Amino acid sequence: MRIKILGSAAGGGFPQWNCNCRNCESLRAGTFAGKSRTQTQVAISSDDRTWFLLNTSPDLRTQIEATPVLHPQNAGRDSPISAVLLTSGDVDQIAGLLSLRELQPFRVYCTASIQRILQEDNSVFRMLNRAADQVLWTEISSDGNFTLLTMAGKDSGISCAAFSLGARYPAYVSQERTASLKSEDALLGVIVTSSAGGRLAHMPAVPAVDESLLQRLEDADLLLFDGTFWSDDELIRVQGSGSTAREMGHIPVSGAEGSLRKLAGLRRPRKVFVHVNNTNPMLDESGPEYREVRAAGWEVAEDGWGFDL
Amino acid sequence: MRIKILGSAAGGGFPQWNCNCRNCESLRAGTFAGKSRTQTQVAISSDDRTWFLLNTSPDLRTQIEATPVLHPQNAGRDSPISAVLLTSGDVDQIAGLLSLRELQPFRVYCTASIQRILQEDNSVFRMLNRAADQVLWTEISSDGNFTLLTMAGKDSGISCAAFSLGARYPAYVSQERTASLKSEDALLGVIVTSSAGGRLAHMPAVPAVDESLLQRLEDADLLLFDGTFWSDDELIRVQGSGSTAREMGHIPVSGAEGSLRKLAGLRRPRKVFVHVNNTNPMLDESGPEYREVRAAGWEVAEDGWGFDL
Repeated sequence: MRIKILGSAAGGGFPQWNCNCRNCESLRAGTFAGKSRTQTQVAISSDDRTWFLLNTSPDLRTQIEATPVLHPQNAGRDSPISAVLLTSGDVDQIAGLLSLRELQPFRVYCTASIQRILQEDNSVFRMLNRAADQVLWTEISSDGNFTLLTMAGKDSGISCAAFSLGARYPAYVSQERTASLKSEDALLGVIVTSSAGGRLAHMPAVPAVDESLLQRLEDADLLLFDGTFWSDDELIRVQGSGSTAREMGHIPVSGAEGSLRKLAGLRRPRKVFVHVNNTNPMLDESGPEYREVRAAGWEVAEDGWGFDL
Repeated sequence: MRIKILGSAAGGGFPQWNCNCRNCESLRAGTFAGKSRTQTQVAISSDDRTWFLLNTSPDLRTQIEATPVLHPQNAGRDSPISAVLLTSGDVDQIAGLLSLRELQPFRVYCTASIQRILQEDNSVFRMLNRAADQVLWTEISSDGNFTLLTMAGKDSGISCAAFSLGARYPAYVSQERTASLKSEDALLGVIVTSSAGGRLAHMPAVPAVDESLLQRLEDADLLLFDGTFWSDDELIRVQGSGSTAREMGHIPVSGAEGSLRKLAGLRRPRKVFVHVNNTNPMLDESGPEYREVRAAGWEVAEDGWGFDL
């Protein structure tokens, strides 16, 4: 299985348009010891011809153009992208659907609740269903297995196991709407397995880590894990107000209850942080936080990275 | 008045993710005699410190980062962008609002009908009103004058005259919803005047040209005009099916009833095509269509261009 990291930042990207924190300011000044990053986006393939997107970032248009295997291969209108798998309704995971609006057929796999948010509460996504043979919506369970199909309905050789990671819907979903949705549909983790071998665990947003999650992760060859915030109060210190990392549904990297400690016992998977917020000090490769992460056996994903499992 | 062209392509950009037409294919191959373009986006300022966006393209995040005057100037969270003026509800004019979601205060000027589409029919835009002091929505008339205000409520020195250009709402707006909206609110043209001098006419989508429009345009110093399609059946020939330029609300550039002929008598404004579709042959600077446009006194906008009026 081939895995491409098209983007590795959290919502807003790095730098973020309205942020002048130490990271963003020095990156723009050209003095930062680290790289800019677009918003997290992953593409996978088991045959190098048919590709599947894990979520759709707001930066998807430029991310596709930066990735030649995702360019059209045939004359006229065409794309090697067969389907999208959505793991939440967060803006930075769904907004890229609007960049896929040009009458192109593809599948969207998501839970019934996410589909209701997109189709019933947001008319703009009707752009995906203007023609009869455009987007095919496929409901997945928040706790089950399914196979990714090509547009022709063929088994792609990639199967997925989904499980619920939390009950929190995005801030734009009203309390009334949330009450009508299944809580376990809000946020999924997925383990993606190729029949050719190779197992990827993808979870750009993880509110908490328990024993059952650790057991699932021990089966993976590659773990792409929530690296949004270094510390719980990181955003409050930059903005002067706001929510903690945990209130936003992200376990921080550092601290006694952070992901570095919680996942320290994992032996099998290669461990890579994705969805890294612009304020996270581990983006600075000259700093102690980056050294700590690397010393703990983790990597910090960069746009353009690829993995072959 | 300073005017920056952050993007100059039509919806989908150039190249477009799922398009392998002659233009897109040769651009990706590095053999095209012309430039890539992000989706049309214009920013204006009368003092070089406070900036206003004319619509918000899906590429807005990268467009802001490519434009240093739009970067934060003060510590913490900050932006010189004070407001957005929306002239339609088209996806390529509104999707960038989602890139402005990071709790930053700014104003949005739009008609009551566009506001209803965004606020009542699309819950995702609630991200712009999560905090009390975030986005201020300001209703404008489809036929009237208004002044752009800074976030502090100060007169920016830029005034706008809006007028209706058509009654067609985007394809994602249902017939039932359309019946409840004002037809004249669907699509605006704007003439933007700076108290320091200088007058811009901005109209990336123009269904037709009549005498009253020609009279308005003769007052402008700079005209940014709909250059979406060269010919009426351009998209049908590439896709094998679909709509004509006119059915999509765009007067084509060429032909007896095209914009080159219709606007040939304009004397005052500098004439620049924006919102150029990836299929438009005038993007090819080695071709006869480009030569014809240039010979007629028009320019084809490129990303990064600036004008001082």
